Amino acid sequence: MTPALSSGLNTPDSQLESFLIVHPTSIGALALLSLPLLTRVQSENTLSYRGSTVDVSNGQFTVTPTVQSLMMIGMGGNNGSTLCAAILASRHNITWHTKSGMQQPNYIGSVLRASTVRIGAEAGTGKDVHVVGLSMDKAIEHARVLDWDLQRQVAPHMALLGKPLPSIYYPDFIAANQESRADDLIAGTDKQVHLNHLREDIRKFKAENALDRTVVFWTANTEHYSDIIPVVNDTADNLLAAINASHSEISPSSLFAVAAILEGEPFVNGAPQNTFVPGVIELAERHQSFIGGDNLKSGQTKLKSVLAEFLVNAGIKTLSVASYNHLGNNDGHNLSAEPQFKSKEISKSSVIGPKGVLASKGEHPDHIVVIQYVPAVGDSTKRAIDEYYSEIFCGGRSTINTFNECEDSLLATPLILDLTILTELLTRIQYRKLDSSAADTKFTALYPVLSLLSYMLKAPLVKAGTEVVNA
Amino acid sequence: MTPALSSGLNTPDSQLESFLIVHPTSIGALALLSLPLLTRVQSENTLSYRGSTVDVSNGQFTVTPTVQSLMMIGMGGNNGSTLCAAILASRHNITWHTKSGMQQPNYIGSVLRASTVRIGAEAGTGKDVHVVGLSMDKAIEHARVLDWDLQRQVAPHMALLGKPLPSIYYPDFIAANQESRADDLIAGTDKQVHLNHLREDIRKFKAENALDRTVVFWTANTEHYSDIIPVVNDTADNLLAAINASHSEISPSSLFAVAAILEGEPFVNGAPQNTFVPGVIELAERHQSFIGGDNLKSGQTKLKSVLAEFLVNAGIKTLSVASYNHLGNNDGHNLSAEPQFKSKEISKSSVIGPKGVLASKGEHPDHIVVIQYVPAVGDSTKRAIDEYYSEIFCGGRSTINTFNECEDSLLATPLILDLTILTELLTRIQYRKLDSSAADTKFTALYPVLSLLSYMLKAPLVKAGTEVVNA
Amino acid sequence: MTPALSSGLNTPDSQLESFLIVHPTSIGALALLSLPLLTRVQSENTLSYRGSTVDVSNGQFTVTPTVQSLMMIGMGGNNGSTLCAAILASRHNITWHTKSGMQQPNYIGSVLRASTVRIGAEAGTGKDVHVVGLSMDKAIEHARVLDWDLQRQVAPHMALLGKPLPSIYYPDFIAANQESRADDLIAGTDKQVHLNHLREDIRKFKAENALDRTVVFWTANTEHYSDIIPVVNDTADNLLAAINASHSEISPSSLFAVAAILEGEPFVNGAPQNTFVPGVIELAERHQSFIGGDNLKSGQTKLKSVLAEFLVNAGIKTLSVASYNHLGNNDGHNLSAEPQFKSKEISKSSVIGPKGVLASKGEHPDHIVVIQYVPAVGDSTKRAIDEYYSEIFCGGRSTINTFNECEDSLLATPLILDLTILTELLTRIQYRKLDSSAADTKFTALYPVLSLLSYMLKAPLVKAGTEVVNA
Amino acid sequence: MTPALSSGLNTPDSQLESFLIVHPTSIGALALLSLPLLTRVQSENTLSYRGSTVDVSNGQFTVTPTVQSLMMIGMGGNNGSTLCAAILASRHNITWHTKSGMQQPNYIGSVLRASTVRIGAEAGTGKDVHVVGLSMDKAIEHARVLDWDLQRQVAPHMALLGKPLPSIYYPDFIAANQESRADDLIAGTDKQVHLNHLREDIRKFKAENALDRTVVFWTANTEHYSDIIPVVNDTADNLLAAINASHSEISPSSLFAVAAILEGEPFVNGAPQNTFVPGVIELAERHQSFIGGDNLKSGQTKLKSVLAEFLVNAGIKTLSVASYNHLGNNDGHNLSAEPQFKSKEISKSSVIGPKGVLASKGEHPDHIVVIQYVPAVGDSTKRAIDEYYSEIFCGGRSTINTFNECEDSLLATPLILDLTILTELLTRIQYRKLDSSAADTKFTALYPVLSLLSYMLKAPLVKAGTEVVNA
Repeated sequence: MTPALSSGLNTPDSQLESFLIVHPTSIGALALLSLPLLTRVQSENTLSYRGSTVDVSNGQFTVTPTVQSLMMIGMGGNNGSTLCAAILASRHNITWHTKSGMQQPNYIGSVLRASTVRIGAEAGTGKDVHVVGLSMDKAIEHARVLDWDLQRQVAPHMALLGKPLPSIYYPDFIAANQESRADDLIAGTDKQVHLNHLREDIRKFKAENALDRTVVFWTANTEHYSDIIPVVNDTADNLLAAINASHSEISPSSLFAVAAILEGEPFVNGAPQNTFVPGVIELAERHQSFIGGDNLKSGQTKLKSVLAEFLVNAGIKTLSVASYNHLGNNDGHNLSAEPQFKSKEISKSSVIGPKGVLASKGEHPDHIVVIQYVPAVGDSTKRAIDEYYSEIFCGGRSTINTFNECEDSLLATPLILDLTILTELLTRIQYRKLDSSAADTKFTALYPVLSLLSYMLKAPLVKAGTEVVNA
Repeated sequence: MTPALSSGLNTPDSQLESFLIVHPTSIGALALLSLPLLTRVQSENTLSYRGSTVDVSNGQFTVTPTVQSLMMIGMGGNNGSTLCAAILASRHNITWHTKSGMQQPNYIGSVLRASTVRIGAEAGTGKDVHVVGLSMDKAIEHARVLDWDLQRQVAPHMALLGKPLPSIYYPDFIAANQESRADDLIAGTDKQVHLNHLREDIRKFKAENALDRTVVFWTANTEHYSDIIPVVNDTADNLLAAINASHSEISPSSLFAVAAILEGEPFVNGAPQNTFVPGVIELAERHQSFIGGDNLKSGQTKLKSVLAEFLVNAGIKTLSVASYNHLGNNDGHNLSAEPQFKSKEISKSSVIGPKGVLASKGEHPDHIVVIQYVPAVGDSTKRAIDEYYSEIFCGGRSTINTFNECEDSLLATPLILDLTILTELLTRIQYRKLDSSAADTKFTALYPVLSLLSYMLKAPLVKAGTEVVNA
Repeated sequence: MTPALSSGLNTPDSQLESFLIVHPTSIGALALLSLPLLTRVQSENTLSYRGSTVDVSNGQFTVTPTVQSLMMIGMGGNNGSTLCAAILASRHNITWHTKSGMQQPNYIGSVLRASTVRIGAEAGTGKDVHVVGLSMDKAIEHARVLDWDLQRQVAPHMALLGKPLPSIYYPDFIAANQESRADDLIAGTDKQVHLNHLREDIRKFKAENALDRTVVFWTANTEHYSDIIPVVNDTADNLLAAINASHSEISPSSLFAVAAILEGEPFVNGAPQNTFVPGVIELAERHQSFIGGDNLKSGQTKLKSVLAEFLVNAGIKTLSVASYNHLGNNDGHNLSAEPQFKSKEISKSSVIGPKGVLASKGEHPDHIVVIQYVPAVGDSTKRAIDEYYSEIFCGGRSTINTFNECEDSLLATPLILDLTILTELLTRIQYRKLDSSAADTKFTALYPVLSLLSYMLKAPLVKAGTEVVNA
Repeated sequence: MTPALSSGLNTPDSQLESFLIVHPTSIGALALLSLPLLTRVQSENTLSYRGSTVDVSNGQFTVTPTVQSLMMIGMGGNNGSTLCAAILASRHNITWHTKSGMQQPNYIGSVLRASTVRIGAEAGTGKDVHVVGLSMDKAIEHARVLDWDLQRQVAPHMALLGKPLPSIYYPDFIAANQESRADDLIAGTDKQVHLNHLREDIRKFKAENALDRTVVFWTANTEHYSDIIPVVNDTADNLLAAINASHSEISPSSLFAVAAILEGEPFVNGAPQNTFVPGVIELAERHQSFIGGDNLKSGQTKLKSVLAEFLVNAGIKTLSVASYNHLGNNDGHNLSAEPQFKSKEISKSSVIGPKGVLASKGEHPDHIVVIQYVPAVGDSTKRAIDEYYSEIFCGGRSTINTFNECEDSLLATPLILDLTILTELLTRIQYRKLDSSAADTKFTALYPVLSLLSYMLKAPLVKAGTEVVNA
């Protein structure tokens, strides 16, 4: 409570969140929201997602009311705290002043327009467990993403969320400059113990909140790429053994993914690193548990997909693509370290690079990606500058230069919502082939690697042998 | 012949074009090219164009070898002369030096990659008919579009094309600053006489070159919009009567379109004005003759379509779009006059404006379009600057600024090729519905208004009541 | 008073401004500030302003403490209300929250760093005179320039300023779209009566606030250019006679200038129109009263001066300069009308145009200036895009494209301060030539046309026959 | 001779250069030009260079006709070959075709407008000494800088220049990717022998061409920074001893500088590395021989100086400056290696960095410099993108983004001319203080470190303890 501010709040104290939440990681946490129920689509017998078609037969696709949730790893970061604040603002009908007038909460940037999303109403405890670490009201202030008048009003609600539960931190995987932020950790260095702890957190979270389903979402720091090492992370069994032996090449995000898979809950990787080493993928297949990733394709990368496709479709030959980015939030700080940058670079390059839309047309332009940390621009004014230099008719040249200024977290946050809703939905879909013979008429769940998420991800994870559709 | 240059030419004089072409308009002409033959599509029974499907049944869609051609109105302009030169360079295997090395002719920017396009081999006369006017070798020099070493080598071939035949010029429709260019005209002011003359030109051209089909293509100046006047151009009959009465509101481009329709030849309007007044459209329907338009969507406008769609698909709310263009070629000069600019502005606005992709999603951002004439930048360095200012999550803002520098004519020219090939192809397609009942099984030609051309046109003409697909 | 907000204010109500101000124009007003005293410059015997030297001899340049003030015409507009708010925030040590943390008031952008500027302490009345019109606390809200948390805190102080006194409004001179804003006017249409009223306002303002000097500053709307008409505004006497006859070509800004001159107070024109017709200049010379103008050179125009000079100094030949601007504040709205735009265009062009730095070097590049009104971008995100296309060594080309996004009023406001301080200072300076013969040793005041202000003005007014220094 | 082309040449073969030149370095050579004579400045007794004043008294500053020359180290590179070709084109009145028409040779970009510069007429031999290496006509083709029609015509003249004399190459100092270019070297690894060889080259060159003065100019590759090592390069004596001992930390450019100093000829370093280690500077002082550097400030860096100064002068607080560059010439290739980039980065940073104009005002914005090698853009379309993010009045923000496209070598080449002319001129100037007492009236030569060159250099070398003026 912040009494001095109470007279300025739109929401009476008595209506402030009486409970809530939640969970983990010093730079990691859980948020709870119950998703809108899907109403049966009667007329069409078909659910259509962006150019794909999923066939659903009557009787088979039965939707019973369930309660789902989202566990965000990285809840205390900019994206996590922004999403929490926006959901709370929406729930409590908080409006706020900007220099231009009054602003309503909204879900612009979310394709699924999750207008009825609401924070779950059942009690969670956890909050008094933690002593150290940044509480959620402080996290939103630290993030510097939302207008101050919104921060001011949402702060008491955020304070009730407490602070994220302890997480795990293996210094090798994250830039050294992040160490000071990792102040709220699960004790010890035994990775099997850590895995058990994370699984217990998921189970407890579901039980306390009476949830049928929880999507576990990595929105924490970018890690460096894991080496794929035979006998360590190349198969499911090797991976589990390596965790048991606390092998150094098991990353925190892989550990979270394994915890979710073993608990049968979907896991989405919103960061660029290769969380899904072969052993993780095999484990997901074995348990028929869903995984999706990698890397939120929020802004410039999505734009690059679109422009690359435009040039190819116009019959123009792209000679070079130069991408320069600078940003001032903690993501930029972490990426300014070499190995973490490599993860991001590989991920971003995939639009233009070996697996991208240009390569699929046989074009291999010069391509550079630069990411720089410039504290002064903060989170609010990330800059992305891309130049496309192309050959046109009879030796002519065309230059397209795009200059993109945006609030990074405000583009990314709605995608977390969309991916969560979409992931949860995909876990419930069963399908069979329309023209298949009698023998095949059983309905099957989707393949565990959710490639349908690819429009919102930079480096879409797909079933081995399947082509990427990057736009 | 230019003896002084002969030692520098790659092509022996003896192999220079022995004939060719040609036709009309002081700012208008004809080029002849025989199109590549279509091979029957066996396996699929389906011809697919960019997301649409046209059904073709065996036996009905019979392709017999034919010879087609293109008549360009505006052949002496930048686009017309560039296209002629490029085709000639390709036919004669002319390569040329640039500061960066040797350059081959190519068709980059043409989606259909018309690599086998060749100039027709039969004789055209016409060339000695004209005394005044710019010959085609001078036109290409005047255009300043192609590298000089290509200009140098292609000039003797271009000279053999002679100069475009006389055209018609009604001062009201084109900027006053263009008057000095209109130096080669069909005599008189009787519009019926003019119509008869144009029809005769088309018939003669086909006969002399033994053509089955000729596409008539307006690549001449932008005219101002015609007023739609009851009893003048609102119906086919009124239109024909108005021509007979030499009514002042009948534009040159409408007259060319009527000539083509009455001769049963397809007509494409590559400029932005409303050539296709209601009377012209009704006439095309009556004669089952094909028309397509308006306005080549070569560069920035195509990019705007793509970016507008990207923003809509990303769930982002566009607040304003500001488009600034400047260019130094004659198109810019003509457009610097107010009424001609209006034609262009209305056409360009349609991407964002009332019928565009944003409007179709219920978005109506502020939108400005500015076109300026800056002689210094020439044809080679047209600049187009677009800014998209959008609202994102929770009151955030995003700015995307694109700066596009390109050689205007080198982007437009391949589109003329593509539209010609596509138009000719569409005139031969017949279709029937796959699941239609027995009564409907007859094959029908496509509807005369060729909306399938829309990807390459800025203000696609569609059948009344049909939605535009502008991307 | 706004009791609901009082708990959030940093300043106790008892310390709120007990008086203040003020004056005129429905879109016009007065602010009072006492300037910092000038300390005598002992060591150097010379006062140096940006590359010029003014000689001051000991004993002759005696500064006695005085009280000066600023009367802003257009006080209720964005610049006027922003300046008032900033001064009040500074005086009352108001700090405010932004999303990024706490913000202190400052004078960034003011070269003279007027850190000790303070609002005068003596009482002004006037405020209860007005019934209609926007009070200053509403003006700052309407302007949408300052952060909301600053608006919130400064509002009670602003409210005490009351609202600007009535002004004059002649519809011919301002865009029709401004009429609804002109709601607080001096009655009648007799221009002599208006002049007398304005002079009385100045006298009363000085007397009530015990001022020695007041700078009258036009920061109101841009008017269209006045025609220079023989016998009307070509000489001082003709001008006074024309005012007496209420001639239609006497603009409001000229009337304000005449009022200031006749009262012996300096007048600065911060807008682009030709307030200073020949008759006004002659009148200023006759009365030895100071005038300065035209047009605040706040952002892009100053940048253009600098870049044009850079190119000239680098020996590079500029071929074209294209300037595109769009903005969403009332200035943009007014300028979207043709005649007002002409004033702005002529003024802006002067940097590159006939009297600019390029012309002075014999260069006359193609030059276009476009200003567009785009409400969506508001005041906060004015965009200015300039392109410089140049010829370099041996036929090479260079393109420099600048994209400038800024808060228009936040750049302009400090210039009003600087110009006021500088103008007041210049009125007190006397000089004589150092090496002059005995006969010349008297000290003289500066010439009434203050060309030393030129660095901060777009279209510097200079003594006839003097070269402009535009950078 | 290229007989096949002779019919296309404007210059008869008989008038082709009968001799010329020349000298050294596999990527290094000499060009000869006699400078325009200085006429005595009578009226003013003062010679003024860009804001500085040099006092010259009658009788003392006597100019006798002399012949000067330029020896370029790196003559076979883009800048060197371009300068040679431009001088030859100017001398032989060669005009050439571009797509836009005829082009005259010119010296645009040279502030001194060296319109009378001409290639010396006396014979040089050397040319048949070399077997390997790129002849100058091939060098200009390889550079891809000049229009092809100019390349074509100037080639026979360039061929007569032969190829540059052998140079020295120490692999440690230049990027590994340059090794294949270093194909024409002075034998051995003994640095004392190399030094003697270079001195002999200078002496022979002056004798053969009867020169009074030759400016030695480093326009070769960027080397990495030399470590400053006590007892090695910290004093003149240590440096000479280290050369004698062939110490590994003596760079090629330092060796050339020492050769020039010992021969009493001025040396200019046009590249960014620290050629002028303390020992070199002391040696220059000891021999009163002139040195100037570092790094040609041709394009973007000069622009940065200007914009940084503009922001400071406008009272605006710069928060960050981000500079992105990509280019496709050999300079970019060499710089893509880490240590060479460091040299460039340090040099470029000096504008904004510790010694730059912002630092001198107490501002220390975030600053990043990125240089990337993108072969596709070639030499002709180097891109430089700079963003200035600033704080303005009361917490406002301003963003200026500049996008600069230019032909790198065409901006740099005129600066070589200017620096040569200016350097030669400065070697002849003597001065004394105007108001000095009688004891001081002797005229003195300028201090050996030519800080007056700073406007054209990125990291101006100045006398220890003197402030840099970087704009």
